[in-house]
Amino acid sequence: MSTSAQSVLNDFRAFLKKIKAYEEAIGLMYWDLRTGAPKKSVEGRSETIGELSGEMFRMSVSERMGEYLNTLGEPETFAGLSEVDRKIVQVSRKEYDRSVKIPPEMYQAYVVLTSKAESVWEEAKHASDFPMFRPYLEQIVKTNLEFIDLWGYEGEKYNTLLDMYEPEMTVDALDRLFGRLRERLVPLVEAISETAQPDITFLDQTFAKEKQQSFGLFILEQMGFDFAAGRLDETVHPFATGLNLGDVRITTRYLERDVVSALFGIIHEGGHALYEQNISPDLAGTPLCTGTSMGIHESQSRFWENVIGRSRPFWSRYFVDLQRTFPGQFNGVAPENFYRAINRVEPSLIRIEADELTYNLHIMIRYELEKALFNGSLQVADLPAAWNEKYNEYLGVRPEQDSVGVLQDVHWSGGSFGYFPSYSLGNMYAAQFTHTMRRELPEMEADVAAGRLLPIKQWLCDKIYRYGKLRDPGELVREITGESLNPDYLVDYLEVKYKNIYRLS
Amino acid sequence: MSTSAQSVLNDFRAFLKKIKAYEEAIGLMYWDLRTGAPKKSVEGRSETIGELSGEMFRMSVSERMGEYLNTLGEPETFAGLSEVDRKIVQVSRKEYDRSVKIPPEMYQAYVVLTSKAESVWEEAKHASDFPMFRPYLEQIVKTNLEFIDLWGYEGEKYNTLLDMYEPEMTVDALDRLFGRLRERLVPLVEAISETAQPDITFLDQTFAKEKQQSFGLFILEQMGFDFAAGRLDETVHPFATGLNLGDVRITTRYLERDVVSALFGIIHEGGHALYEQNISPDLAGTPLCTGTSMGIHESQSRFWENVIGRSRPFWSRYFVDLQRTFPGQFNGVAPENFYRAINRVEPSLIRIEADELTYNLHIMIRYELEKALFNGSLQVADLPAAWNEKYNEYLGVRPEQDSVGVLQDVHWSGGSFGYFPSYSLGNMYAAQFTHTMRRELPEMEADVAAGRLLPIKQWLCDKIYRYGKLRDPGELVREITGESLNPDYLVDYLEVKYKNIYRLS
Repeated sequence: MSTSAQSVLNDFRAFLKKIKAYEEAIGLMYWDLRTGAPKKSVEGRSETIGELSGEMFRMSVSERMGEYLNTLGEPETFAGLSEVDRKIVQVSRKEYDRSVKIPPEMYQAYVVLTSKAESVWEEAKHASDFPMFRPYLEQIVKTNLEFIDLWGYEGEKYNTLLDMYEPEMTVDALDRLFGRLRERLVPLVEAISETAQPDITFLDQTFAKEKQQSFGLFILEQMGFDFAAGRLDETVHPFATGLNLGDVRITTRYLERDVVSALFGIIHEGGHALYEQNISPDLAGTPLCTGTSMGIHESQSRFWENVIGRSRPFWSRYFVDLQRTFPGQFNGVAPENFYRAINRVEPSLIRIEADELTYNLHIMIRYELEKALFNGSLQVADLPAAWNEKYNEYLGVRPEQDSVGVLQDVHWSGGSFGYFPSYSLGNMYAAQFTHTMRRELPEMEADVAAGRLLPIKQWLCDKIYRYGKLRDPGELVREITGESLNPDYLVDYLEVKYKNIYRLS
Repeated sequence: MSTSAQSVLNDFRAFLKKIKAYEEAIGLMYWDLRTGAPKKSVEGRSETIGELSGEMFRMSVSERMGEYLNTLGEPETFAGLSEVDRKIVQVSRKEYDRSVKIPPEMYQAYVVLTSKAESVWEEAKHASDFPMFRPYLEQIVKTNLEFIDLWGYEGEKYNTLLDMYEPEMTVDALDRLFGRLRERLVPLVEAISETAQPDITFLDQTFAKEKQQSFGLFILEQMGFDFAAGRLDETVHPFATGLNLGDVRITTRYLERDVVSALFGIIHEGGHALYEQNISPDLAGTPLCTGTSMGIHESQSRFWENVIGRSRPFWSRYFVDLQRTFPGQFNGVAPENFYRAINRVEPSLIRIEADELTYNLHIMIRYELEKALFNGSLQVADLPAAWNEKYNEYLGVRPEQDSVGVLQDVHWSGGSFGYFPSYSLGNMYAAQFTHTMRRELPEMEADVAAGRLLPIKQWLCDKIYRYGKLRDPGELVREITGESLNPDYLVDYLEVKYKNIYRLS
């Protein structure tokens, strides 16, 4: 590479590092607001976040950024870049092209709209009053359609939204993936609903928060979470945030009447955190230093939460520790009883309380409704009826009010259309990765049953975590498993697991 | 004011608000590093702080800033500004003039030097090895002398350093102030050292940290600390930081063998926090939204810590709560015994462990040495001997090694020359303010003895806190007390208090 190209590259990387610095500062301010900032800090802090976010956005769409990308994107120069630098240029170009197409005043108005919409949504949910939220949601959908026109699209307009969370994902692909899920999971859920339920009466107790916390910390440590590079706090809505490679923070919420809610939250966010803690240090300070997509990120949280945390070998090993943590509270309960109780399947109205199996049906419903909103076959005004109809069709339950129906999730008020599918994609990726892992780590189940979780973490580091955003989700899944995303692994896994639990043939 | 001047003013205030946003983000990152950030976060976080600090510095010395100040400083425009805006322009001009005079590469080298010097100082202190630290200190003094040449000075060079922490303060004024202190305090300390000491044996116990914390929180609440606009955390080195008007955080350190160390730390930092929490909201987001000088800030922490917290009426009211907090640990101890025990005077080597009375002598020694270093009458190489000589002269003690002598404080390694006098100035301001307060709040002692601290806080809000940096320290003290800073109030206060405790005539 020429010395002048080398110098542009150095400047470009310094510029990206600066943008990352803003991102880190903003990330810490959000973490702080959610964990322990005093109430009255909010007004000043919001303005501060606004100032720094604005500055970060201006840098990301600046002429300077455009010039870097043009220079480094010239075929000859680009060909001379390292693999990492090529990917940095590609990822930055995609982000830049997307951002510069939106006129700043339009973007600004949208930020104000969604911020207002979120508080209206909260009120509307509380009052179970969809008409209150409807005009905001209509405006958000309308603005997103305008964005899509500016961004451009191939095939369905909704594809452009999907691509933001899962690069290259399309309606065609999702129809195929979800079709397969629906075809095999709906009958399984129906069969289970006609079968005797496992006993869960022993879960109906009070479990001291401090003990839940100490057990959660113990499990995090078993998973290989690095406490010198992260911490666990309490929030109303749990999350994971990677501030830098040496600082990945997770949160949970403790319910005294539920022994596993916070625990599975911790394992779930811990999975996200393992990903962010183990990205290769070469990628630090670059836009590649994060998970490659929401779907792959979710595959890691869901792998640890469900494939490991809700598995029989896991509880055959750790139930004794849980018993020790809560002396006397699980007398006479066998690990197998506990395993069956925490895997009880029950069609329900609320996504975030759903079991591992029906969860995918909740996502499918949202996917189908979003798709219909963006291809024009469904109007916002008709959403509640369509929602209730789908719940009845796939899950056999029907919300009696919108607060436990169409108004339950925050996502749409923030304009996050295209995000929901990530949850089920995560489940599919996780099942497919697990299939390969079982072949490459034949002792996997025995390891879990013996409390040896670190070989599993190491496998994931080697295959997924270290690459950050260097590999696209499609590449990653093909490289690791030898084929593209295939929903059968998830369905097979769920069928085997739940037919066993429910003793179905 | 012309519409064009009005528009410049609006832009200028928006620009200052942006600079404040950076300051707030950086402040939160420091708070986080000191309270609970994971160990491995430090490398990435330091770079992030560096990026944002650099950006903030560039804004503060930018041409744009210079143009704002020139435009708004034109006599006709300036005269048309509000009182607040005039002061903002003055304060910003002073800061700007100071910053632009230092060549960026010189400043950069100095930042590196002091950052390195601080870690060398830590090592040197640990090894009690002054020669290890000496070359760094020499370079720091030399660079500060070069800075002073660039900044300019009137009379003594050291005046320019003093002015950074206490506007308008000079060597002449300090010589007079400290001269008066020396004259009356040195004989008082000598007289006390020949007198029987109060009993302190009942302090020699272990006091559970959690209980110390709950008592500290109770006292903070009594002082009127707003917990919706602040919080208390634990750190190795206690501090207070005002992030925004609704977010002022303090920290302390608990020693299980000392029942009052953390408590007086909390009251001290709480005093700083009351100041920052009660600045007028009109000043939010401007450079006036902070304490007016280090001396006035210190007057508030020391007022609450010493004048209130170490007073007889305070313990006549709150000792019963302390007894209740530590059941059985103070059986048979009267409030008066406790009051005398925590006010025991004993000449010692370490500033931060000194009692209220001898503390000023520790400061005086540092002031005289700094003055001599900057007028050329003392060389860095001769500091240890000069230090030991002064301790012997004023306090009758002599360090046997430099770790408990000249190497004890961090300040010089960071180049903070001119800072130490603030501590004693704080004591002097506090005593003078108290003299006026007693006249205006004749029930003050009875109020404290009855646990009514809020009228005192309100008086300080009205007279001091709300103004932030709008009034200079000199103005403030004259407006409140009717005269300029007068050290006799401090000496009178100390003589009355300690002659009473030690029963001296």
